[in-house]
Amino acid sequence: MSRAFNFSAGPATLPETVLRQARDELLEFPGAGASIVELSHRGPEFMQVAAEAEADLRTLLSIPDDYAVLFLSGGATTQQALIALNFAAPGQVADYVVTGHWGKTALKQVQPYVSAHRAADGEAGGFRDIPPRDDWRLSADAAYVHYTANETIHGVEFRDVPEVGDVPLIADFSSSIASEPLDISKFGMIYAGAQKNLGPVGVSVVIVRRELLQRAGQPRAPILDYAAHLQGESMLNTPPTYNWYLAGLVFKWMLAEGGVAEFARRNARKAAALYAVIDGSGGFYRNEVAAAVRSRMNVPFFLHDEALDAVFLDEAREAGLISLKGHRALGGMRASIYNAMPEAGVQALAAFMGEFQQRHG
Amino acid sequence: MSRAFNFSAGPATLPETVLRQARDELLEFPGAGASIVELSHRGPEFMQVAAEAEADLRTLLSIPDDYAVLFLSGGATTQQALIALNFAAPGQVADYVVTGHWGKTALKQVQPYVSAHRAADGEAGGFRDIPPRDDWRLSADAAYVHYTANETIHGVEFRDVPEVGDVPLIADFSSSIASEPLDISKFGMIYAGAQKNLGPVGVSVVIVRRELLQRAGQPRAPILDYAAHLQGESMLNTPPTYNWYLAGLVFKWMLAEGGVAEFARRNARKAAALYAVIDGSGGFYRNEVAAAVRSRMNVPFFLHDEALDAVFLDEAREAGLISLKGHRALGGMRASIYNAMPEAGVQALAAFMGEFQQRHG
Repeated sequence: MSRAFNFSAGPATLPETVLRQARDELLEFPGAGASIVELSHRGPEFMQVAAEAEADLRTLLSIPDDYAVLFLSGGATTQQALIALNFAAPGQVADYVVTGHWGKTALKQVQPYVSAHRAADGEAGGFRDIPPRDDWRLSADAAYVHYTANETIHGVEFRDVPEVGDVPLIADFSSSIASEPLDISKFGMIYAGAQKNLGPVGVSVVIVRRELLQRAGQPRAPILDYAAHLQGESMLNTPPTYNWYLAGLVFKWMLAEGGVAEFARRNARKAAALYAVIDGSGGFYRNEVAAAVRSRMNVPFFLHDEALDAVFLDEAREAGLISLKGHRALGGMRASIYNAMPEAGVQALAAFMGEFQQRHG
Repeated sequence: MSRAFNFSAGPATLPETVLRQARDELLEFPGAGASIVELSHRGPEFMQVAAEAEADLRTLLSIPDDYAVLFLSGGATTQQALIALNFAAPGQVADYVVTGHWGKTALKQVQPYVSAHRAADGEAGGFRDIPPRDDWRLSADAAYVHYTANETIHGVEFRDVPEVGDVPLIADFSSSIASEPLDISKFGMIYAGAQKNLGPVGVSVVIVRRELLQRAGQPRAPILDYAAHLQGESMLNTPPTYNWYLAGLVFKWMLAEGGVAEFARRNARKAAALYAVIDGSGGFYRNEVAAAVRSRMNVPFFLHDEALDAVFLDEAREAGLISLKGHRALGGMRASIYNAMPEAGVQALAAFMGEFQQRHG
């Protein structure tokens, strides 16, 4: 088949222009005599790739100067463990706001290190809503408050940054970073695996207030230490150069397309189009998330008759629409519509969903 | 310029046939409608890539069935920290045989976790030799013995697996894995960052005796736990799929070329050719490592007059020979000649070195 519209939740679709450039440079990075994947991270070619990636990301996200940017191997889950090691004293209380699967994972990673407190928890309601801020039971002496900005599986997204006072706020933005403007100064740290809105899997971005890096944390290897990574300019060990390079190409693409303000508009239109089909289907399609916190990035939905699931997936694939199967934890369908998913892809999916209902409704 | 012979120590040269296949598949993995870098790690395409990579590596390295194979994000340095967390009780003695820069790094990573004991140390001799086995002071109650099979910077390589009795032997094979046959059953664990002999940076291979995974180790996040990674089939979190895919292509290439026995012959010839030029230069070039432990993978050498270093690098580049600058810790030159460096590349370098000496000697 030719290139389809790929709704995978991550690894996820990349801009075709980025893939074309990567392809054209795969045997030889311009003027280098070798591929960027073969060149030393300390050489002039990659050093420039790395520096441009950081500069472009700072521009794209309006990252304040008092925040450090790290490009690290490992995914968001690794960062979830490092947060406790770097910012909490052994056994100190840390508050976790759990609004889906990934919030639970984040909490699980730190249990050997801190007294993890579920300050709010949407699990009793099947993670279909976010507990109101007034109901959160924050600890006075917490090392930090952690939440998941967008839950990729449950399709629940914070539409505002919660107010938590003076305790550093740390958030997993893996699936919504760069999807709309964000005031980073409200956070102690945000982090994201790149494989949704930023590029390929295998590199994570950590954006952290420099002051936080002075915390003692708890005993840890240098390779698990954020301050050491900053001092080593994210090259404490050999970094995942090719992943970093691809992410850098995606940053340039996002800037060229108009930046996060433009993507916020596109993403709003894309999400609205899909939720309109679902809500207008008279129950043929169903999304159970409270309207105010529905994710703009991941649209999970169920067919009224799950016996049709396999047919839906087969016919979608025939129509050039792939990776729509929902996460095994929830079942059903899921359309992930990150920045790199063109509006034409969402329109094609919306049209297909309407036709499918006509045929099978 | 066109593709040069690239002597980078890692990231390092890849087989051109691998790069060509990756290029041809970059926009669409055959039949998938998307690039492998865009597809879910849980989808059929990548699951097959992953399974084939493990099967091919097991064939290539003759890995016994009672050893698990993990493909993990992060480099060798991350594994160095995890070794202590997974296999040693808090504060337990662990023996380290230090024969160069990377052995020192390995030891540094575990200092928060174990009582790290330098059982042998080549530093006083400038890491130009390996302390004789009879002089090692191994601890009776050590959790494990760790050594570095090949020191990439100092160019010192173990030519035999040391005998250490019943204590599990753990070795960093980052820069010599798959370069010659190895009896893995002599080890508790070996590990390697892929970016030298196995493929691109961003994925590491851990080969560990399953029995060792039953050790309690010390408190650690699930993402830092080898047994959890094994249970999750190296997909505890989203793995670095593209890096894993590229490594898998390199495994297939190595098998097609004749496997590790064939690479052992080629590597012996390549190393012999370079050391012959150095030793036959009457002191114009100098390698200071004891002959019996000279690395077959990394050949560091110095020009008799370091004022010529920049000229050497410039003229080499003109001749299509790149990345020959030595590590900043040592200075001088270094030719890294892993499996993917063709014999023609080494012959070209040897010829260039002879001509350079004639012009400047």
